[in-house]
Amino acid sequence: MSLGVWLVGGRGSVAVTSIVGAFALRAGLAPPTGCVTELPEFRSSGLAGFGDLVFGGHDPSPIPLTKKAEQLGDAGVVPAALVRALHDDLAAADAEIRPVPDGPDQAITAARLVADLVDFRQRHALDRVVVINVSSTEPAPEPHPAHDTIDALEDALRTGATILPPSALYAYAAFTAGCPFVDFTPSAGARLPALAELARRQGLPHAGHDGKTGETLLKSVLAPMFAHRHLQVRTWSGMNLLGGGDGATLTDPGANAAKSASKQRVLAETLGYQPQGVVRIDYVEDLGDFKTAWDLISFNGFLGTGMRLEFTWHGCDSALAAPLILDLARLTGAAHAAGHTGPLTELAFFFKDPLGDGPHGLADQWQTLTAFAAALGAGPQA
Amino acid sequence: MSLGVWLVGGRGSVAVTSIVGAFALRAGLAPPTGCVTELPEFRSSGLAGFGDLVFGGHDPSPIPLTKKAEQLGDAGVVPAALVRALHDDLAAADAEIRPVPDGPDQAITAARLVADLVDFRQRHALDRVVVINVSSTEPAPEPHPAHDTIDALEDALRTGATILPPSALYAYAAFTAGCPFVDFTPSAGARLPALAELARRQGLPHAGHDGKTGETLLKSVLAPMFAHRHLQVRTWSGMNLLGGGDGATLTDPGANAAKSASKQRVLAETLGYQPQGVVRIDYVEDLGDFKTAWDLISFNGFLGTGMRLEFTWHGCDSALAAPLILDLARLTGAAHAAGHTGPLTELAFFFKDPLGDGPHGLADQWQTLTAFAAALGAGPQA
Amino acid sequence: MSLGVWLVGGRGSVAVTSIVGAFALRAGLAPPTGCVTELPEFRSSGLAGFGDLVFGGHDPSPIPLTKKAEQLGDAGVVPAALVRALHDDLAAADAEIRPVPDGPDQAITAARLVADLVDFRQRHALDRVVVINVSSTEPAPEPHPAHDTIDALEDALRTGATILPPSALYAYAAFTAGCPFVDFTPSAGARLPALAELARRQGLPHAGHDGKTGETLLKSVLAPMFAHRHLQVRTWSGMNLLGGGDGATLTDPGANAAKSASKQRVLAETLGYQPQGVVRIDYVEDLGDFKTAWDLISFNGFLGTGMRLEFTWHGCDSALAAPLILDLARLTGAAHAAGHTGPLTELAFFFKDPLGDGPHGLADQWQTLTAFAAALGAGPQA
Amino acid sequence: MSLGVWLVGGRGSVAVTSIVGAFALRAGLAPPTGCVTELPEFRSSGLAGFGDLVFGGHDPSPIPLTKKAEQLGDAGVVPAALVRALHDDLAAADAEIRPVPDGPDQAITAARLVADLVDFRQRHALDRVVVINVSSTEPAPEPHPAHDTIDALEDALRTGATILPPSALYAYAAFTAGCPFVDFTPSAGARLPALAELARRQGLPHAGHDGKTGETLLKSVLAPMFAHRHLQVRTWSGMNLLGGGDGATLTDPGANAAKSASKQRVLAETLGYQPQGVVRIDYVEDLGDFKTAWDLISFNGFLGTGMRLEFTWHGCDSALAAPLILDLARLTGAAHAAGHTGPLTELAFFFKDPLGDGPHGLADQWQTLTAFAAALGAGPQA
Repeated sequence: MSLGVWLVGGRGSVAVTSIVGAFALRAGLAPPTGCVTELPEFRSSGLAGFGDLVFGGHDPSPIPLTKKAEQLGDAGVVPAALVRALHDDLAAADAEIRPVPDGPDQAITAARLVADLVDFRQRHALDRVVVINVSSTEPAPEPHPAHDTIDALEDALRTGATILPPSALYAYAAFTAGCPFVDFTPSAGARLPALAELARRQGLPHAGHDGKTGETLLKSVLAPMFAHRHLQVRTWSGMNLLGGGDGATLTDPGANAAKSASKQRVLAETLGYQPQGVVRIDYVEDLGDFKTAWDLISFNGFLGTGMRLEFTWHGCDSALAAPLILDLARLTGAAHAAGHTGPLTELAFFFKDPLGDGPHGLADQWQTLTAFAAALGAGPQA
Repeated sequence: MSLGVWLVGGRGSVAVTSIVGAFALRAGLAPPTGCVTELPEFRSSGLAGFGDLVFGGHDPSPIPLTKKAEQLGDAGVVPAALVRALHDDLAAADAEIRPVPDGPDQAITAARLVADLVDFRQRHALDRVVVINVSSTEPAPEPHPAHDTIDALEDALRTGATILPPSALYAYAAFTAGCPFVDFTPSAGARLPALAELARRQGLPHAGHDGKTGETLLKSVLAPMFAHRHLQVRTWSGMNLLGGGDGATLTDPGANAAKSASKQRVLAETLGYQPQGVVRIDYVEDLGDFKTAWDLISFNGFLGTGMRLEFTWHGCDSALAAPLILDLARLTGAAHAAGHTGPLTELAFFFKDPLGDGPHGLADQWQTLTAFAAALGAGPQA
Repeated sequence: MSLGVWLVGGRGSVAVTSIVGAFALRAGLAPPTGCVTELPEFRSSGLAGFGDLVFGGHDPSPIPLTKKAEQLGDAGVVPAALVRALHDDLAAADAEIRPVPDGPDQAITAARLVADLVDFRQRHALDRVVVINVSSTEPAPEPHPAHDTIDALEDALRTGATILPPSALYAYAAFTAGCPFVDFTPSAGARLPALAELARRQGLPHAGHDGKTGETLLKSVLAPMFAHRHLQVRTWSGMNLLGGGDGATLTDPGANAAKSASKQRVLAETLGYQPQGVVRIDYVEDLGDFKTAWDLISFNGFLGTGMRLEFTWHGCDSALAAPLILDLARLTGAAHAAGHTGPLTELAFFFKDPLGDGPHGLADQWQTLTAFAAALGAGPQA
Repeated sequence: MSLGVWLVGGRGSVAVTSIVGAFALRAGLAPPTGCVTELPEFRSSGLAGFGDLVFGGHDPSPIPLTKKAEQLGDAGVVPAALVRALHDDLAAADAEIRPVPDGPDQAITAARLVADLVDFRQRHALDRVVVINVSSTEPAPEPHPAHDTIDALEDALRTGATILPPSALYAYAAFTAGCPFVDFTPSAGARLPALAELARRQGLPHAGHDGKTGETLLKSVLAPMFAHRHLQVRTWSGMNLLGGGDGATLTDPGANAAKSASKQRVLAETLGYQPQGVVRIDYVEDLGDFKTAWDLISFNGFLGTGMRLEFTWHGCDSALAAPLILDLARLTGAAHAAGHTGPLTELAFFFKDPLGDGPHGLADQWQTLTAFAAALGAGPQA
């Protein structure tokens, strides 16, 4: 069962780390640390093997995969020796990264994106292609009536208008080409009602939003801890310092606001109330691909006694995100094969701002996920 | 349904905070923050109300409850105004704290402890009395053949020998008097096979060990997070600085070792392997009733990329423990009423070193606990 | 030698903590912890005693000193028992707090302020009165030509125009009334060239700006450490979470910007270059009078090896600032008596953004300060 | 002016990093980050250039410098590319590392050490050789009367007795061979009165003890800050987690105790009193050459208000120590040339547990050091 993995932002840090990692796992050069779907709970889910994955993608950057992988090797994100060992595979994968079609008419751009996807699927005789957005975060788009239904959207596109943010245009193209779509960023992607409608019409599953890789991952286990112990969280403030590509994007106040809101949602959902405090994101170029998050939580215990928890998370975003990209590709591919359509709410475990009304606590999300994986292994949905 | 709560260490910080809190809740002077059994999941479990609780206990300290409560008020552990408002109630409760019987013959001492318990139950016409050990941590006892069966133990006691550590003597007395026993400390308590056998013979439930109030509570949510994300924890080191009575006790190397071992168990159980690193406990008198725990966790992500998490927990042990004492009294009382006997493994949520082979992750323990609470509400066990 | 201390913001947290503290010291109810001028180095400087200080001030708030002091007692900023013991003294001091004169004509307002100062000095037969600004931080004022010379300023005031930010109007009034002026905030105060000229013309000393009480205090010892060890600081980022009155003011972006700039100056001055990173200030009401600052410093050592330092400072701003207010009053009073005029650059030890071109490292500032104190003790300036 | 640098422990991490660095600086391949003597204050001190240094040493390890340097490159302590570029220089230096002479008779061992030093000095026609101890920490030796005077010591050695710990034997050999000696470890080294007497008799300078590279460096600026602000430090507790060779040595309780005592001395000396709290050192192999220190400081401000400071230092010991080795070699060589004899108390800036009664605050030590450096430049001592 060959599975195409089409990465929007295919020459970015997350995508390249994913591709290096998949090749390393295929070659037995690295253990699958960080790959959730390699845990025993997923053994019978019928997921595609690492050797079954074929990578392609869109990226405006002219820097080839091989070069970008070397940079990640120098920065300590991936082992430099691994990059050298996989040079030829990476060069081959780079040949499947397409430039981003340019032009003022989004209908024409969409058609070109669709053509790239269909061509990729046919040339490699792939059973299916999962499109995953790992490009930079966009500001939230202005609301527009054409976002509400697929008919209104297609009418507007026919006028030659620029109506969709880039991430949504990719989602539109993916669904049109018959491909499931995964939003790993907080961007609009397939959030717009018109696109969700299109996914259903095409019988396609989709997943998102915003990969949960650091501070929010911690929140999703700490907030339930406070809730189950009936402790009252008074304030929860966070500071995120990051230097990679995504950091630079987040200096844009719109993108920053989108990301911050996504990061606080778990508190209200898990605690049942919103503590005081905000999340800040600051770009500090020199920190490179590593991110430091500091959170201060003040809470009350019995009889109002004040207490505090602080944590510092020093993580490498690409190294945390990349294995989840492989997980999402495998799970979404299997879900498509099994006939799932619409939002894959069962994948909330992976996301900061998950689709649907499910639980935000990580342990509950884990149970939902493993039950889903077990059902996938039991054969196609009725 | 009146419920006796007999506290071994009844004039210590944890006990006095529990008693102040129960009176405050009964009088509507404080919200039940920190009381797990006041969450909606326990509403139909038929637990005793705060007004149904009657407190007594043993303590060698001559400092009355009222004085100790004032000290806790000055130290910011409980609100000083609350202590003033509850003065009369506290003075009344103090009258139920018995001195610790002295003497070289443990059989005679046990008989006096039993007499105190029976007298307390009869004078207050209590349905049942739950005995809870909140006294200082003891060193682990030397193994002895008389610890293995209740017959061997009673034979040994009849010789006038000193064969049991104090916590186990209290457990022996509790079971003999027909009272369930809860170990909130890492001391031997009812761990000895002879005592577990006695509990079964008497048809009594028991629970333990070692209340989970800080660093280990965090481990029990963070370790599953690492495990479910398939991240490899390389090292987990902890430093605990504490100044209260328990801190002073822990300068004894034996007690320190007992506590440290109890604190690391969750890692191996939850991760499936034991990371490098140890837990240290240091007594710093000046820190008073507050405790600071610092943990450093180093872990590997995808392709071996090294990352780190640090946390600092600044908590008040008495304020964290006290509401759990009320929870355990209510739950154990209800379990006794429902006919449960032997180890209450369903209460693992509350303990660092829980009885039985159940899960060590907090979320799983929460599910077990709430299912148990729901079953309690459904009426007596078949 | 009686010394008047006139506090602009006399009913605010810092002022009230200062006054409570001075009375407690006078009465021997507390040790002089935090009072720099009570160290041995200042013993022969001929400073006014705590019993010689007479307090007055301006404040728009109608909440009396006694009430404010009680609130600070409840919040744990000052001991509640001390507030009760000093009630009568505080009530007497409150009678010397004047409302802020209102009205559109700044010349008239200034005249009223002058009258209040002169009246205070005369009624108490004070040798001198030091005016200290401890009111809330203002945004930086728009530049105006009338700020450049005292002649231009007085011409403009005569037109009835509103030309000065409040802090500068207080400085103008102080100098006009013959009083030294100390800026404990980052507001304009006596920074405007016109006011510095007025101070010189009046033969008065002044000091400022912005009391160094927390994060910047640490920077002023840590940055020299990195410099003297020839370590290369790559990034220095800071997050300040605070809940008191000053925190609320700082939600105003202008005031926040003024404070942040003041907080980073020490780095460039001490290291000789400006590392990447910014300082953030967030208001979190629930934190009350306590402030938490977290700083992350990344630096390179030998051969470029990357390393990191993090610190968390959990301080009480009023408790840190208040003793410095007493120090500054005593030192500025003695400097006035000794004939010093113009900027007291020797007091840089106390300030984030000190007057003059002196060193920003705390140890160097300490040496300058103690030499100054020794010279004060040696008698009037030639 | 050629200067020999003889490293006891010449194939250990610190020594190898020093040698790689010196060669890199000589070749212009790296900037002198971390080298204190490359700051402007030392420009006129007449110090040996990096090109003038010739390295040798003793080490029992058979792993050659080139191999050890590669390991340090893989561990991120030095750049791997630098190790490759300097391969031939490192191989040449390795030829000057001698095995540690073995045998039960310390007089004979000493003679062989002396022969190695003299041979090294003669073959390279060196003006002088500075011996620096960078070997693993030893436990404190048992007191012995022969340690008190050089005559008693030499009498004892003549009996064939084993009377000196290894570090002291190296100091004995160094002084006997006419070489200055620097203790970069907390071991006995030249501390024994007999050896200090020998240094004076031979007209040689010596320096030590225990390089100040991390936690204690921070203490030496933070403790004066608290002192100068008249803040009362209540508790100061530290936890050091380290994985390198020194970490393994410190699992020996004796060595650990020696190091911990050395680390707390700065507090009593700088504050004037000893706060509560201890320093812990734990070996966590997996942390490799990096060290994490966490300190919690609780202190009182005005009117007793409690506050806290925490810091985490994540440093690479070898990268911090290595440039100081070069500094100490250059400064001690120049001091020898200028005729200094006995303890070089002016080098306290570099040490945790400095010789003499000088100040322990870093800023004061900096002033002493730079004055000393200036005097060195002014020509030989009278």
